[in-house]
Amino acid sequence: MSAANPSEHRGLDALIAATQGAMGDCNAIILARTQSEIDLIPALAGHLIAGGGKRMRPMLTLAGALLAGADINSDAGQMQNAAKLAAAVEFIHTATLLHDDVIDASELRRGNKTASAIWGNEASVLVGDFLFARAFELMVETGKIAVLGRLAKAAARITEGEISQMLLAGNPAASVEDYTRIITAKTAELFAAAATSGVMVAGGDDALAEAMEDYGMALGVAFQIADDALDYAATSDAIGKEIGDDFREGKITLPVILAWQDGDAIEREFWQKCLGGDIGGGDLDKALDLIKKHNTITRALDEARKHAEKAAAIIEKTEIAPEAQKISTALIEAARFAAMRGV
Amino acid sequence: MSAANPSEHRGLDALIAATQGAMGDCNAIILARTQSEIDLIPALAGHLIAGGGKRMRPMLTLAGALLAGADINSDAGQMQNAAKLAAAVEFIHTATLLHDDVIDASELRRGNKTASAIWGNEASVLVGDFLFARAFELMVETGKIAVLGRLAKAAARITEGEISQMLLAGNPAASVEDYTRIITAKTAELFAAAATSGVMVAGGDDALAEAMEDYGMALGVAFQIADDALDYAATSDAIGKEIGDDFREGKITLPVILAWQDGDAIEREFWQKCLGGDIGGGDLDKALDLIKKHNTITRALDEARKHAEKAAAIIEKTEIAPEAQKISTALIEAARFAAMRGV
Repeated sequence: MSAANPSEHRGLDALIAATQGAMGDCNAIILARTQSEIDLIPALAGHLIAGGGKRMRPMLTLAGALLAGADINSDAGQMQNAAKLAAAVEFIHTATLLHDDVIDASELRRGNKTASAIWGNEASVLVGDFLFARAFELMVETGKIAVLGRLAKAAARITEGEISQMLLAGNPAASVEDYTRIITAKTAELFAAAATSGVMVAGGDDALAEAMEDYGMALGVAFQIADDALDYAATSDAIGKEIGDDFREGKITLPVILAWQDGDAIEREFWQKCLGGDIGGGDLDKALDLIKKHNTITRALDEARKHAEKAAAIIEKTEIAPEAQKISTALIEAARFAAMRGV
Repeated sequence: MSAANPSEHRGLDALIAATQGAMGDCNAIILARTQSEIDLIPALAGHLIAGGGKRMRPMLTLAGALLAGADINSDAGQMQNAAKLAAAVEFIHTATLLHDDVIDASELRRGNKTASAIWGNEASVLVGDFLFARAFELMVETGKIAVLGRLAKAAARITEGEISQMLLAGNPAASVEDYTRIITAKTAELFAAAATSGVMVAGGDDALAEAMEDYGMALGVAFQIADDALDYAATSDAIGKEIGDDFREGKITLPVILAWQDGDAIEREFWQKCLGGDIGGGDLDKALDLIKKHNTITRALDEARKHAEKAAAIIEKTEIAPEAQKISTALIEAARFAAMRGV
């Protein structure tokens, strides 16, 4: 597979460089719009937003606007709207993280203490709601109702994905199709909405909006599969989560589904017991051994790479204006990065 | 005060009658838009929405549209948009209730078990998020971006109000001004947005939109003061909450603030102890005695009545088309009901 060629896998550097100016505006908007008379709101929101992350989603919005021909230097109005939209996308993402912290009581997020562990569940729910509302206020300011429609749909689908994931917890007999449907809703939907709405806000044509929609969807699936695989492979340093977080929460992800499918009766019983919440000392090590035995991290990452290549191919076959070639190259590299990072 | 005249206090009957047809459409939209492939969503949302309540907020939206001249019989497009908006308003309200259940772990809401007690916090947070997203989808369908702007602002203000209330919990030395500011944000803001956006979606003029904004704000304040007063007066049967819910949660409301202001040092110490979470057997009875001693339920309801009269006066001095007189009379009666119900 071509992605195995290291020269095609240069990470996010090009995308970061291409969106840097507008990302400065986006960050300023994020800072300004988390302000409130109530000090707790900027404190809590800032904790999570400053906590880092790669800002993949807002970068996709800005890249979409640039692909559509918005010019960072000369077209201040369009780029300002794109920056607002990018901030809105990051707010929606942050709101889901805050609500997710409440939900699964995870102790680590990006290597820091979760907001809910510091400020309590109540504050996390409410500040999440605040950011969600602020996201819609920002979108209203862009004046494009179609953009609001796309992101409202994404927000509904994200919660459907999270609910499906909650209902599937503890059940390793799930199919790969179930898993893919869930991560498409809970993760890829926002990637797709972020990317396509960037095109929309900058007045790009339908073909380009559709290409970015499909690119974002494939990228989001690749990204989530890789994230889930690394949960059984990476150390806290690498992705800011403790290894085995998903295992402890009974979350059903691809490495587990594949190990369960290939496992014998005793192995299946082990998975069922642990993912059902009955985890003893040494069980995580045993789970890691089974994952190694069935080679399911590598197999999951192969699956991620397929989706990443699909994303790259969509951009490759889309007609891009010569002045936006840098952006399209950056998007192709970003897709390959999504499936390879941390490996 | 004129509101003491029983003939001017005929409850919600007129408002219910005037909005009945459109409310049928609104209820059908609510039912249709809580559907999902995931059975849990309509089950959980339906539990709360079917649980009753007076549907004050969607009625205000429909009344606003009717005041603006939308005709239930002949102007299907405008009334359909108003019904969608009314459903969106009810979804926002329901989402805040679901998130509030998570927050304060209250055992009763409208006399039924809370959703979170049945399905768990995780489900309540996520279904609340789902309804919030669906609300914005419905608003997008009305095609009026100004309506989205007003309700997005309301959503942000509601969470600010809820956060302020959380931060004030346990502190009875709060001022009446603090309390009023909080209930204006957490309750009146949505009443105001609901009422004014009904005018906006039906193409009413700015003067009418502003009148309904101010009416909704005053009505919402009256409604919340009365609700808070009844928490120390009503039985579970009357308002579907157990008496003393707010006391147990350390919530700071007007009867408590007034009792604290008029209390001696020993009484103040008692309030501080109980609202700080240290409640012993007999303490609720003692609190009720103090509230009776200082007559603070009656005083709170007097305050509610002032806001209700303000709301009524706003409608009385607004120019209303002759064919919409029934609606304006109904709104005046509804305002008086808000401050008198259950007494």
